[in-house]
Amino acid sequence: MKNSLYIVIVGCGRLGAHLANQLSRDGNSVVVIDRDETTFNHLSSGFSGFRIGGDATQMAVLQQAKLKKADIFIATTHEDNVNLMVAQVARKIFRVPHVLARVFDPKREEVYAHLGIDTICPTSVAADIFLRAIANGAAETEGSRS
Amino acid sequence: MKNSLYIVIVGCGRLGAHLANQLSRDGNSVVVIDRDETTFNHLSSGFSGFRIGGDATQMAVLQQAKLKKADIFIATTHEDNVNLMVAQVARKIFRVPHVLARVFDPKREEVYAHLGIDTICPTSVAADIFLRAIANGAAETEGSRS
Repeated sequence: MKNSLYIVIVGCGRLGAHLANQLSRDGNSVVVIDRDETTFNHLSSGFSGFRIGGDATQMAVLQQAKLKKADIFIATTHEDNVNLMVAQVARKIFRVPHVLARVFDPKREEVYAHLGIDTICPTSVAADIFLRAIANGAAETEGSRS
Repeated sequence: MKNSLYIVIVGCGRLGAHLANQLSRDGNSVVVIDRDETTFNHLSSGFSGFRIGGDATQMAVLQQAKLKKADIFIATTHEDNVNLMVAQVARKIFRVPHVLARVFDPKREEVYAHLGIDTICPTSVAADIFLRAIANGAAETEGSRS
């Protein structure tokens, strides 16, 4: 990621803000969209991108974010349906080359893949890490308890 | 993890239920605690453990879950303060050998480590995966857009 990219992020909760802060720090042009402008408090003082207070399911808001110019679009709201819808619009209508979406329900990952949208399911990822930690710790545990 | 373990999970949201289902399927004895009994709907029909509807910050509830017998304790509620509190109680009072907690605020991970509690921060994990996907995709993106 040597050149600066134009990145639009929907949702400025913990995940969206974390990504926005990091990607802005890395020298990219970042636009963050959230219906709830109080979430912009999650952005660090070093965030040099733009904030748009608005509903990303409205075309006007996506146009305001200059989605046509975007290299990367990331949907991180807490609603799978919103993420699916805006990611589809970004991919199909604005032809953003790289679209990523958070998806809470792992069953939906397949649908996204068909639409050319990369997904990540935090629940599955977190569960896998917990299960690995348990498997690693179980040997000691069994030793001390049996 | 060859032998069956006795595992107590606090919080039956997506993550807690996912872990409970998997760990029960693996042949462990699992107890799930949640204040909100409707969350038990997340458990699969194959879940063979116990459900306790109650507030895990109450000692009586933890005693009912036979925490003294537990090999592993996992705190997965949506509140960092609750997770920190119950994890501490499990570790210090009930002497559960292996205690894990979900923590949303990465700044708190250090505190947990001092208390002998393993943590996982889904936001950090998800962000890392997104950032890796972006870094991998950026080469193609730059090629198509420059």
